Amino acid sequence: MINLQGKDILHGAQFSREELERIMDVADMFRNQLETRPSLDYLHGYILAALFFEPSTRTRLSFETAMHRLGGSVVGFSSAESTSVTKGETLEDTIRTVDQYVDFIAMRHPALGSASRAAEIAKAPVLNGGDGAGQHPTQALLDLYTVRSERGQIDGTTLVLCGDLKNGRTVHSGVEVYKHYQVRLVFVAPEQLRMPAVITARLKSLGIQFEETDDLTNALKKADVLYMTRIQKERFTKAEDYERLKDSYILTRQMVENLNPKVVTLHPLPRVNEIATDVDTLPGAAYFRQARNGVYIRMALLALIAGKIQ
Amino acid sequence: MINLQGKDILHGAQFSREELERIMDVADMFRNQLETRPSLDYLHGYILAALFFEPSTRTRLSFETAMHRLGGSVVGFSSAESTSVTKGETLEDTIRTVDQYVDFIAMRHPALGSASRAAEIAKAPVLNGGDGAGQHPTQALLDLYTVRSERGQIDGTTLVLCGDLKNGRTVHSGVEVYKHYQVRLVFVAPEQLRMPAVITARLKSLGIQFEETDDLTNALKKADVLYMTRIQKERFTKAEDYERLKDSYILTRQMVENLNPKVVTLHPLPRVNEIATDVDTLPGAAYFRQARNGVYIRMALLALIAGKIQ
Amino acid sequence: MINLQGKDILHGAQFSREELERIMDVADMFRNQLETRPSLDYLHGYILAALFFEPSTRTRLSFETAMHRLGGSVVGFSSAESTSVTKGETLEDTIRTVDQYVDFIAMRHPALGSASRAAEIAKAPVLNGGDGAGQHPTQALLDLYTVRSERGQIDGTTLVLCGDLKNGRTVHSGVEVYKHYQVRLVFVAPEQLRMPAVITARLKSLGIQFEETDDLTNALKKADVLYMTRIQKERFTKAEDYERLKDSYILTRQMVENLNPKVVTLHPLPRVNEIATDVDTLPGAAYFRQARNGVYIRMALLALIAGKIQ
Repeated sequence: MINLQGKDILHGAQFSREELERIMDVADMFRNQLETRPSLDYLHGYILAALFFEPSTRTRLSFETAMHRLGGSVVGFSSAESTSVTKGETLEDTIRTVDQYVDFIAMRHPALGSASRAAEIAKAPVLNGGDGAGQHPTQALLDLYTVRSERGQIDGTTLVLCGDLKNGRTVHSGVEVYKHYQVRLVFVAPEQLRMPAVITARLKSLGIQFEETDDLTNALKKADVLYMTRIQKERFTKAEDYERLKDSYILTRQMVENLNPKVVTLHPLPRVNEIATDVDTLPGAAYFRQARNGVYIRMALLALIAGKIQ
Repeated sequence: MINLQGKDILHGAQFSREELERIMDVADMFRNQLETRPSLDYLHGYILAALFFEPSTRTRLSFETAMHRLGGSVVGFSSAESTSVTKGETLEDTIRTVDQYVDFIAMRHPALGSASRAAEIAKAPVLNGGDGAGQHPTQALLDLYTVRSERGQIDGTTLVLCGDLKNGRTVHSGVEVYKHYQVRLVFVAPEQLRMPAVITARLKSLGIQFEETDDLTNALKKADVLYMTRIQKERFTKAEDYERLKDSYILTRQMVENLNPKVVTLHPLPRVNEIATDVDTLPGAAYFRQARNGVYIRMALLALIAGKIQ
Repeated sequence: MINLQGKDILHGAQFSREELERIMDVADMFRNQLETRPSLDYLHGYILAALFFEPSTRTRLSFETAMHRLGGSVVGFSSAESTSVTKGETLEDTIRTVDQYVDFIAMRHPALGSASRAAEIAKAPVLNGGDGAGQHPTQALLDLYTVRSERGQIDGTTLVLCGDLKNGRTVHSGVEVYKHYQVRLVFVAPEQLRMPAVITARLKSLGIQFEETDDLTNALKKADVLYMTRIQKERFTKAEDYERLKDSYILTRQMVENLNPKVVTLHPLPRVNEIATDVDTLPGAAYFRQARNGVYIRMALLALIAGKIQ
């Protein structure tokens, strides 16, 4: 039996395989329960603070949806401009204050390590919804869950991760959950956006199989799952670097149909043009189902850390 | 029996007279039920996404109020700046994502036709809260409902619509619901802001009585209902055109008292100075009651499209 | 028995001692009830409008939290930019509209007297969450409640109020509630930011003991409660005046430990650097408990003005 009651959700690396399996099983259970009713009552009367210091559509709205589907309520903000941050308040003071009000804190903040700083201060569990180029663990969980949902199992999967692997927090969090499974990882990135050495070194020390390449075509042929990511403009300091690299990889319908029609395609979204829209209607295009899975995963996390389910 | 279950609400023209009557009857029922209790339970557990890409006070808050008064919850945003639109996400992708989360989508977006584009994509019913200079059907319904509430019936009414009839989406949606009734329409606008020819041609083909003038004084004398609208700065491309036309029509208390003390005055609000504030206390000044009616109408629509009422 | 049903909460001066005591007793009751359950049902189905025309973290989120903890819902906005104020709507029209929708209005607005203007118009009770350099009565109540909670009683307390006493609406509202108790008030401010003469004259006429000084060190020695405030940049018209005065008083851990280790330190927050962060862990550092007390006080006010409790 696992016990996540009162735990913070900060880093993809924090979970054991047993915990990952349990979180996904609870997500499955909620998905089934919501087939016949619009919401559940596990968190009736509980309040989530959604503190988004950076823009977000999916992460914020799916945390809020998860809370409502469990019968709870939400307070918060979607940009720092309407808050006392404009008066010079520190992150620590904002968190310490909000901690007086609510039962859970979900947050996104541009500073690396910000969620961990918040978790040290807050009594309420903190759920990291993205800390700059750092981690995005709920995304990693919903990605993993989508692989399991689409393929029936995770072990034995060849996962191709493609795009900005240097700055992409979703892939950084991702490798920390994939490592518990018998998967082969293929990293596809332009030279300047390769997976950071600290992560590849870590994978080596853990004995995880991976390879690196800049060739999407070849990688796609052997992929069971292709995980595309956006080249994130907001992570570049020079506009010219972004302009040069932004169209490095563009997945087209023809590529999928010719090279690997059965591939399951994921994307954390938003996309700009990494995936042509005519890919969307292919049966393996799972990125919007992936967004929906985010609600079930976040429901599972909230119910587990509230101790309403073990 | 009508059946609106699962329907989108996109255009004033989509309703039959029977549907209009049923929506207004349900609005009346909710109004009565709320006399004795603060909220109802028809949509307990349901979630509305309120996606406002443009500023709004009334439409957003009254959709949200309607949802809460039916026992439901709301997620969303009140400006695109806090969303992934800032990262280059298309409307289509935003809608397809939110559609994974919620049971209804109410939206306002500056692009003509945006709500219809959203409705093609979304499984959840889409309620158009204004698409640029296009349509605003829930406003048309609440306007019609206010005429019925204030006068007891709609047939036999002379309606004077005054202001920016060229760009005013509330009047464009409005004529599409008035056409089902025995009404006389009088359009009062400066030459440059006349009702578009496509709409007057449509009225002619439908055999609807209307006349056009730029003389508010004469029109007011024969009005049962005067519908004032704002000259909308945000619809002009040249500031000088706006400046010249913005004060074309200003309704004063003296005008009402001298010309037509019994007239029912409506306005979709916000007003700038089209109606002097000393008009507000006249018994026929119905524009704030009209705002309240927006809650009952939106409750009716939500309950009907959820299939909780037929 | 007091009766606050339907009352507006506009000004610190509006309460009798009996009302203050009752509000604090109800706050205590709610605090106790929330020990064993996440929320209560007093305002199930009721809707609060939180209309924040100026940035806020604490006041807005604690009003919203209070409403949710009582089982109610919230609509509103956290900045005027997403509303029809951008189209030229007056405060009066915004309030009159929102009044059609909701059961309570909590608001913050930069204009002195704005909450009173709103209260004259709205049928729904208005709760002033700050009107420029005017009043902030719910803050005054939660400050008073924190003094009672921390010390067991209010009578007999020496209160030192320090910082920008000229522009600080929390201290202006504060003196209006302290006046009902046997307290000694010490005002510590630089010459340019002294308590306005209109307030000191009023205290004299009421026979309230107070003294004025610019010496924090001496004042601290005799304080039972030290109420620090921020020098508010947004209240200055000249940047140079702000720069010169902003660091007038900085409370350090050493000062507290050497001069008065038992002092209860309060602050309405946000702080910039008026209180060094190493003060936070001293047992008398009560400013985050004070923030929490804001929820109980606002719950008490909402339940009392709704008539759900007498």
